[in-house]
Amino acid sequence: MNSSKTVGLADVAREAGVSLATASRALNSAYGVAATTRERVAEVARRLEYVASPEASRLATGATRSVALVVPHLDRWYFGEMVGGLEEVLREAGHDVLLYHVGDPEGRHAFFEHLPARRKVDAVVVVAVPVTDHERRRLELMGVTIVAAGGQDATYPYVSIDDAAAVRQATEHLLRLGHRRIAMITAVDPDRTDQPVHRGRTRGFYEAMVRADVPVDEELVVATTWGGVQAAEAMENLLSIRELPTAVLAHSDEMALGAMRTIRRAGLRVPEDISVIGIDDHPLAELVDLTTVRQPVRDQGLQAAHLLLALLRGQKPNLAQKLPTRVVVRSTTTTAREKQPSPAHPAPDTTSH
Amino acid sequence: MNSSKTVGLADVAREAGVSLATASRALNSAYGVAATTRERVAEVARRLEYVASPEASRLATGATRSVALVVPHLDRWYFGEMVGGLEEVLREAGHDVLLYHVGDPEGRHAFFEHLPARRKVDAVVVVAVPVTDHERRRLELMGVTIVAAGGQDATYPYVSIDDAAAVRQATEHLLRLGHRRIAMITAVDPDRTDQPVHRGRTRGFYEAMVRADVPVDEELVVATTWGGVQAAEAMENLLSIRELPTAVLAHSDEMALGAMRTIRRAGLRVPEDISVIGIDDHPLAELVDLTTVRQPVRDQGLQAAHLLLALLRGQKPNLAQKLPTRVVVRSTTTTAREKQPSPAHPAPDTTSH
Repeated sequence: MNSSKTVGLADVAREAGVSLATASRALNSAYGVAATTRERVAEVARRLEYVASPEASRLATGATRSVALVVPHLDRWYFGEMVGGLEEVLREAGHDVLLYHVGDPEGRHAFFEHLPARRKVDAVVVVAVPVTDHERRRLELMGVTIVAAGGQDATYPYVSIDDAAAVRQATEHLLRLGHRRIAMITAVDPDRTDQPVHRGRTRGFYEAMVRADVPVDEELVVATTWGGVQAAEAMENLLSIRELPTAVLAHSDEMALGAMRTIRRAGLRVPEDISVIGIDDHPLAELVDLTTVRQPVRDQGLQAAHLLLALLRGQKPNLAQKLPTRVVVRSTTTTAREKQPSPAHPAPDTTSH
Repeated sequence: MNSSKTVGLADVAREAGVSLATASRALNSAYGVAATTRERVAEVARRLEYVASPEASRLATGATRSVALVVPHLDRWYFGEMVGGLEEVLREAGHDVLLYHVGDPEGRHAFFEHLPARRKVDAVVVVAVPVTDHERRRLELMGVTIVAAGGQDATYPYVSIDDAAAVRQATEHLLRLGHRRIAMITAVDPDRTDQPVHRGRTRGFYEAMVRADVPVDEELVVATTWGGVQAAEAMENLLSIRELPTAVLAHSDEMALGAMRTIRRAGLRVPEDISVIGIDDHPLAELVDLTTVRQPVRDQGLQAAHLLLALLRGQKPNLAQKLPTRVVVRSTTTTAREKQPSPAHPAPDTTSH
């Protein structure tokens, strides 16, 4: 189908008036070539419709110049944003990006058992996937560089936020507003219900409460599988507790929205009756005026790609990079009420037992 | 790094007690092999840690067994969901998925001029990217199969929704509720402001209004770049019109949320003063009780991948597949008020001029 006149690198070099080696380096964006030379060679290559043969490039550099991204949930904003950042930097550096979605248990099992990326890539980025010991041993069979983007996993060089710190910030925001009965809705991965989605988040909550010398009511700390509807259901359970929380800290903004729906449907007001804070600063959080802890998701992707490139170049980058988070105050949190609300619930009978 | 004992396909075939051809077909998930045989061969391959050489597979089949996905916005739910569907089917069929993000004008230009996927893939899926004539000619230089997923572009075999029909459904829902002054906020691509994001949506609005014999006030049809904040600003302009709309149809759910924020901040109520309907059924639409037109996004990805596989197999699939959409009524739309609201605006002086 393709009109394949074979224009070789030698043709490009001759036309651009440079050596073969310089033409090769210029087209591979390698260092040691002046920008003007690089542009001239690129212009000639474009004009001649020269296309490098991937096999030839691989033979020349001993590398595939491909990177595998292992991503558990493509349908969530967080992962798309992260992948966008990774792709941008890797692409600009001349790498191809192979996408491996390991969403459900079968897909995940198939990926780690068959290692479809083996021999095809120079590196793997695990995007916010906590890997088991078995999976780690399988990955290492590939014998390539591995980094983690997001979802801090100290097994590999990583760029992430400090999950415990993010939740401490959220908790401290609520404590400063006078809240004491603070509920937390944590998430477990639907496919790995034995594990929290981000280790450290529940710990951050306890740390902030202990530091402030505020006792935690265990009834108010609930775990559910990740998701807005699941958080809405968890919130129903929280509303059935005799003494309601005055504030709720949700694992993510999507889950905060689920909790808010339940609160409003129960005839209570956000934030007057119950304050709600999320984590992420999802693009829609601004539109629904949700108070949240902002994490720089795209930046984690960009920086994880730079970390990977540095490792591939044999440099010595910082192997544990944590990006800062900060509270963004909008209209879903306010000062704690003196008296707990109870329109949908009878007042607790303080005389009983 | 990798302990490379070279286990060949012949070893797997011998151990599994099948012919070389059967072992090859079994591992490539090709037809004509009994499920039990396929499982036995896979089990042996796993046990022996056999890994197919990608180069060998390519030589054997004359194909790269790779597909390029060209995606403009990875940070939006719609695209992630679509890519998730495509990846699942292509992966199961044994294809690698190469991701090409062409978000900004530079990235887009670089992709179409340099064709980084050339010679690396058997096929390209353009994911809701309307390509220009020039870009189409560049793509065709690759000499591979091309299909479109989402964002109907009749240039290539495609799977999408009927954008005009989706907007007609939304408009007819509002008309049935008695609305006559209906505003529409349409989106143009931030990088292609000369073009609507989905052709057909504005047309669908006019079609429904004309059929119902309701005149369209051109002042109420506004275009803005895609995004919730942009829609919020467009809504501000709509609220400055003397005679307010009683309903707003937004290009997407994200944009509907932006419009709702402006309406509420102006002291008006949704839906009592102004009804709002979106398009998509974004996962968060359910959580904020947004009335919308549901489109099956993941299904478009799944089905586009099947369409592509059928073309690669030389079959004759339906080249123009449109999936149905339907209105999901939640709480942001209601019957039109008799009298237009005006808390933030003086009542129009009907005696003037």
